[in-house]
Amino acid sequence: MKNYDARQLAHAALQIADAGRDLAVRGWTPATSSNFSVRLDDAHAAITISGRDKGNLGADDVMVVDLHGKAVDTDARPSAETLLHTQIYARYADAGAVLHTHSHNQTVASRLWAKAGAIRFEGWELLKAISGTPTHETVIILPVFPNTQDMPALVKQVDAYIDSGTPLHGYLIDGHGIYTWGRDMAETRRHLEAFEFLLACELDLRRLNR
Amino acid sequence: MKNYDARQLAHAALQIADAGRDLAVRGWTPATSSNFSVRLDDAHAAITISGRDKGNLGADDVMVVDLHGKAVDTDARPSAETLLHTQIYARYADAGAVLHTHSHNQTVASRLWAKAGAIRFEGWELLKAISGTPTHETVIILPVFPNTQDMPALVKQVDAYIDSGTPLHGYLIDGHGIYTWGRDMAETRRHLEAFEFLLACELDLRRLNR
Amino acid sequence: MKNYDARQLAHAALQIADAGRDLAVRGWTPATSSNFSVRLDDAHAAITISGRDKGNLGADDVMVVDLHGKAVDTDARPSAETLLHTQIYARYADAGAVLHTHSHNQTVASRLWAKAGAIRFEGWELLKAISGTPTHETVIILPVFPNTQDMPALVKQVDAYIDSGTPLHGYLIDGHGIYTWGRDMAETRRHLEAFEFLLACELDLRRLNR
Amino acid sequence: MKNYDARQLAHAALQIADAGRDLAVRGWTPATSSNFSVRLDDAHAAITISGRDKGNLGADDVMVVDLHGKAVDTDARPSAETLLHTQIYARYADAGAVLHTHSHNQTVASRLWAKAGAIRFEGWELLKAISGTPTHETVIILPVFPNTQDMPALVKQVDAYIDSGTPLHGYLIDGHGIYTWGRDMAETRRHLEAFEFLLACELDLRRLNR
Repeated sequence: MKNYDARQLAHAALQIADAGRDLAVRGWTPATSSNFSVRLDDAHAAITISGRDKGNLGADDVMVVDLHGKAVDTDARPSAETLLHTQIYARYADAGAVLHTHSHNQTVASRLWAKAGAIRFEGWELLKAISGTPTHETVIILPVFPNTQDMPALVKQVDAYIDSGTPLHGYLIDGHGIYTWGRDMAETRRHLEAFEFLLACELDLRRLNR
Repeated sequence: MKNYDARQLAHAALQIADAGRDLAVRGWTPATSSNFSVRLDDAHAAITISGRDKGNLGADDVMVVDLHGKAVDTDARPSAETLLHTQIYARYADAGAVLHTHSHNQTVASRLWAKAGAIRFEGWELLKAISGTPTHETVIILPVFPNTQDMPALVKQVDAYIDSGTPLHGYLIDGHGIYTWGRDMAETRRHLEAFEFLLACELDLRRLNR
Repeated sequence: MKNYDARQLAHAALQIADAGRDLAVRGWTPATSSNFSVRLDDAHAAITISGRDKGNLGADDVMVVDLHGKAVDTDARPSAETLLHTQIYARYADAGAVLHTHSHNQTVASRLWAKAGAIRFEGWELLKAISGTPTHETVIILPVFPNTQDMPALVKQVDAYIDSGTPLHGYLIDGHGIYTWGRDMAETRRHLEAFEFLLACELDLRRLNR
Repeated sequence: MKNYDARQLAHAALQIADAGRDLAVRGWTPATSSNFSVRLDDAHAAITISGRDKGNLGADDVMVVDLHGKAVDTDARPSAETLLHTQIYARYADAGAVLHTHSHNQTVASRLWAKAGAIRFEGWELLKAISGTPTHETVIILPVFPNTQDMPALVKQVDAYIDSGTPLHGYLIDGHGIYTWGRDMAETRRHLEAFEFLLACELDLRRLNR
């Protein structure tokens, strides 16, 4: 069995707690929803334990899983959505952190664009905050997948999307919230902040333009 | 006369003050509105005294009532809505705390759905935050009762609803705010946070979809 | 010349600074707008000096005026709207504090209801937060006066309204913000919080019901 | 080569860090967007270095440029939009600070009024917060320029507008945010706060009046 580095775990737990505190203050993690993870190496990730208050995380609220979502060295129960985190680490070798939050805008937008299956962002300067987007003229697509309690089914949907070759920087689940990732926690938080901002703008344009 | 446990009262007062501080910061207790209670035993509850600033509660702002809403060992005046708290403890043996708040979303939603008599939540992942709701596919009904200053009349309405056998996790009063409860203060706060989030989402869908 | 009590002035300045800090954090005093006062006796009031940052007031930012709005014992320039404060102290013997703020909701509502000349609040439980309102069934009228830089003209409009005998708990000026008062600073802050809440609710009902 | 004053630079960096902290807390600088500058003398300005977190700026996050936007005494890369800052110092001899932020309201308004090419503010008391505006009866025009990654092209558009002689207190770029300035940082922050407030009001009137 391949082992993870305990110091890296401690560092990951700090990054997760720090992100949780900040995101909870913004109201993006209501009622113990949301989960956060950081890659430890090419076979392990640190992830939040199910049901904890995301605004007040400590080292005891983070556990290790392998990239199949199995708990490592612990009896704790990982978040129900662990497979959606480990899928990103398995599919994207350069992904270093994954954030799943549940803000008002993310949730409302997921319902509104569920039928269309995706939101198309265009003409926003803040698109440049998504890595690999050199100008505001780029179009970014954020898919919306149907919600289900059957995690393997959800994983399959995301796999099929990745296999289709369309660039993917994050996705919504209908009625549920967003998943996004980046090379490290700083980039992932920037991506999350950018998507939240863009969703809020698109929702408001719709309120104003109907 | 059956007595309550003074240490339990002190603990309940701390939980109430803590909840009040957090809910006041969110703006859910405007202009000294709102009231909070914690069950002490099968015959007593601790409840906020009428008219106090809910963001700055101390032990002196909490009093004991029996489950008929009568003050115990004090001349303080309990909140006008005390009967709505004690009713919950009397009807639900496992209810350990009751929160009544008065947020913008709760109040506006109560006016909008007053005629319909209830709000129907469906398709939201956060429904799982309500205890006994295993999946997001469950439907949860939040009734809206007409407002009246005649507390026994309000109590009767709620009693009739409970007697009808429909599961009840909370309710709105028209123009007034929400009541919700749970096994303990932590679960009750999670229920309150979930209902507030769901109300905000339903209101926004209505703004966006008209 | 009748003198004011220096200790009362010091106490009034503290109350004003405390209110300012709280109201600025809420965003109700943008860009050095707003002004606050406290009655000292039947001939004097303490009021904020013009142009100061309302979130960071000290004793030096408060001055004394007589009830004709003239500066007392100082060369400082009182706020341009001082006459609207002293008018309240002159007309209502039990008024102990006046708050004028400039929140988003107050300003937008003043524009929307300027033509109607008043906003009519009915059916809101929070109406009970306005002193002298025993039940939520009372109707409260908040008049909206046209804006003008001619203060004596504004004062005349308010005088005429008071002379008409309609109960007055506060008023809006078109494009400008709210004035409200109470027996002391605590009651005045409760009135301000209640009006802000009610305006936000009425605006949102209009967004939702059109 | 003319030199700048190191003490003035240190002071400018403090003012920029202070503004950044405050504006980031309000959510006006999402995802490392926005940039801030302060004039040092008639040939130099201090400006934020590209890509830094605007809520947590230190002396190392600020650099010196000349009024052609060239870095002075440093290898750091100035913000891509540096030319828009230095243009203001070159064209307005009394401009002492420039703030570019990226709030939700600024961004949404820029999209809505992009076709019209400008927003016209009228009837708002807060217009008096813009220097040189004696009464609320003044009309203030905030132009909206098309967005482009070609900075010299953007600079040309602004130059043409200034050359036209219409008074200019700030401008929006489509999908991008606002630029505003003033004699010093305090006046510039007051202008920014006033424009944000006015944009929020105009957007809301549009939501309410459609």
